[in-house]
Amino acid sequence: MSYRVAIFIFNEVEVLDFAGPFEVFSVAGLRTRSVPPFEVFTAAQFDTINARNHLTIKPTYTLEKAPKADIIVIPGGGGFHADGTPFGSRREMNNPIVLKWIQEQSANAQLTLSVCTGSLILAKAGLLEGKEATTHFLAIDSLRKISDNITVKEKTRFADNGNIITSEGVSAGIDMSLHVVAKLLGKETADETAKYMQYDYWK
Amino acid sequence: MSYRVAIFIFNEVEVLDFAGPFEVFSVAGLRTRSVPPFEVFTAAQFDTINARNHLTIKPTYTLEKAPKADIIVIPGGGGFHADGTPFGSRREMNNPIVLKWIQEQSANAQLTLSVCTGSLILAKAGLLEGKEATTHFLAIDSLRKISDNITVKEKTRFADNGNIITSEGVSAGIDMSLHVVAKLLGKETADETAKYMQYDYWK
Repeated sequence: MSYRVAIFIFNEVEVLDFAGPFEVFSVAGLRTRSVPPFEVFTAAQFDTINARNHLTIKPTYTLEKAPKADIIVIPGGGGFHADGTPFGSRREMNNPIVLKWIQEQSANAQLTLSVCTGSLILAKAGLLEGKEATTHFLAIDSLRKISDNITVKEKTRFADNGNIITSEGVSAGIDMSLHVVAKLLGKETADETAKYMQYDYWK
Repeated sequence: MSYRVAIFIFNEVEVLDFAGPFEVFSVAGLRTRSVPPFEVFTAAQFDTINARNHLTIKPTYTLEKAPKADIIVIPGGGGFHADGTPFGSRREMNNPIVLKWIQEQSANAQLTLSVCTGSLILAKAGLLEGKEATTHFLAIDSLRKISDNITVKEKTRFADNGNIITSEGVSAGIDMSLHVVAKLLGKETADETAKYMQYDYWK
């Protein structure tokens, strides 16, 4: 049996935020197991997504058609235009369609993960209440402002609450995903995955 | 003036191979310079590309419509099906349309970069003759077999010949791209880019 991994994407998503976990879960265990341990797909509100700097992606599913997943990944990215209009995760964190989808998927999932400012979306969905969480170093204050009931951790690669894990910015999603591979499949498989990716920094 | 960066993509391209450089060049210098130093686009033979594990991408340009670039990036990925049919970079390395495009772009470009088995494509395009080069650790022998006139380097993050730089597998493209940012814009900008990406491993 494979773990089904849903990666939520949206306009102005930071490319490495989603591509890091996509890579890790796509290649983990492929060389050492007879059945691929993860089946990865992308899901988005729209059928075409413009990731940061105009990388155009056709998601595997729109949100309403996406199957239930065992692991959901919420990447981040985005900010505010000069006139104050939010874009990327700063917009999605207030998008009721997205928040509802995440709440429903998370209620069913074994693991809910976020990278970078994806944790702002999880926080707005109410999923970080009573939890430890982290985010991109430039968004620490934004995360604090969402709820007093989140223990915000700084300078930690990721914060693991068991079923909900948030990582700091961008490249940290790679480390968090390898950590999840180790949790689910054992350290040997995570080590082999990092080796295949020549991610020499993984301990 | 911005450096124009063309990232070649193809069916079964390894996701992090192209997404790592895409991320680095997309975000480098954005916080410290008034003009974005890099303008990144993707280019492919077809107008829809299925990257590894079904990530569907609409390239910015098809090869014939892509403008000349200052920097070209050739990622890798792929292998052989059970019946011996090559896919991904193992197919593109023998695709005359791709080799011709790379030769023409490289002749005009300031820098030609490859990640992972992208160096096999550069080697087949004749661009590594008399150069030092590296590749994914599982493809070292394949690179050696293409030409006796390539000095194949093992266990090096990337091999820099000045105008042609090849990196080892997958995540090494991030380090090579940061190295290029440092070459072109100075170490301070590369350090700031790595910090923004929370790529703590960059020295």
